[in-house]
Amino acid sequence: MPPPDVVLPECVTSAVSESSLLPELIDALRCLPGVGPKSAQRMAFYLLERDRDAGRHLASMMAAAMDRIGRCQSCRTLTEAQLCGICANPKRDQSLVCVVEGPSDVAAIEQATEFSGGYFVLGGRLSPLDGIGPEELELGLLQQRLAAGGVRELILAISPTIEGSATSHYIAEMAAAVKVPVTRIAHGVPLGGELEYVDGGTLAHAFCGRQPV
Amino acid sequence: MPPPDVVLPECVTSAVSESSLLPELIDALRCLPGVGPKSAQRMAFYLLERDRDAGRHLASMMAAAMDRIGRCQSCRTLTEAQLCGICANPKRDQSLVCVVEGPSDVAAIEQATEFSGGYFVLGGRLSPLDGIGPEELELGLLQQRLAAGGVRELILAISPTIEGSATSHYIAEMAAAVKVPVTRIAHGVPLGGELEYVDGGTLAHAFCGRQPV
Repeated sequence: MPPPDVVLPECVTSAVSESSLLPELIDALRCLPGVGPKSAQRMAFYLLERDRDAGRHLASMMAAAMDRIGRCQSCRTLTEAQLCGICANPKRDQSLVCVVEGPSDVAAIEQATEFSGGYFVLGGRLSPLDGIGPEELELGLLQQRLAAGGVRELILAISPTIEGSATSHYIAEMAAAVKVPVTRIAHGVPLGGELEYVDGGTLAHAFCGRQPV
Repeated sequence: MPPPDVVLPECVTSAVSESSLLPELIDALRCLPGVGPKSAQRMAFYLLERDRDAGRHLASMMAAAMDRIGRCQSCRTLTEAQLCGICANPKRDQSLVCVVEGPSDVAAIEQATEFSGGYFVLGGRLSPLDGIGPEELELGLLQQRLAAGGVRELILAISPTIEGSATSHYIAEMAAAVKVPVTRIAHGVPLGGELEYVDGGTLAHAFCGRQPV
């Protein structure tokens, strides 16, 4: 039994306030990426003191999104419909298929480029040690699409990391087996990058991949 | 009528994805302080792809907190009970009352100091131009507490800004009218601050407020 004069109620059990719901909200906010204890506390106080309506709206949107957003049956990106807007859009050229790792890559490509084909979203990279094999990435679905014909170019836009390269290689072989031409986006010195600060691997890659001007 | 070949469906109407719920969630996340479009997108994708349970938990905690957390009847801090843990704790010395601007100041003082008195949380600063007068800060409640007797020291821990100083001054006069001694926390050079980088106002204040060693 602790001695009766040991009093550490507020500062330890609920360091931030005396409500139990408030520390729980602060703790729950920490599930968001990039949010630590201080930011979580600031967010909770901000919502409670300044903008409860926005907090209620966010809570309901979040609950709805977690339950209703699934994956597109064709390209596996996040959507609440059976087919995402890109797959359902008859103006997109589905004979061009761009393979990316995640839905955020789709967003980045849509914002930066004029690409008007379709996508296939892997949801990760092959990583046998973590138990991520071709089944986890739903590569069977991609294979069906390739085998069905009608794909005139498969564009690989996968990060050039070790696992990403292995994934690209696997998919390239899969496409070669059904004679679909495969390209990958260019790797090299990023625009605005100074040569002396670019890492050696990138520079060597850029050198090998030089193009006629 | 726009020409029929103008096609800007995905990139403009739902730049991030083709689900309408996803852009709405990303937009709703931007109500959080310090969260811009990029962070909001990252948070939404993270929750949807990696941790839907945490997202559901956060949504339910947030909804509950927005609806159930109110203000303590005695000190006006955020709590879901009638009295907050500090006001309800018989071991806290309620004859010492520390006046702060917001609940986050209570948290900061509780974490940094050994203060074992009570609080009064203003919820802002006097700012007549913004329509914030003594009624908005519930100063009547503080006055009742002072007039009821039993307060042996009122400690002002309000930011030394122009509005904060005006608020401190107003409260000090209120306390003087009922003969309650008032102190304010020290203003001066912060610990670890180098004199040459401290602003002139703070330095002048610290000089005037010098203390015997």
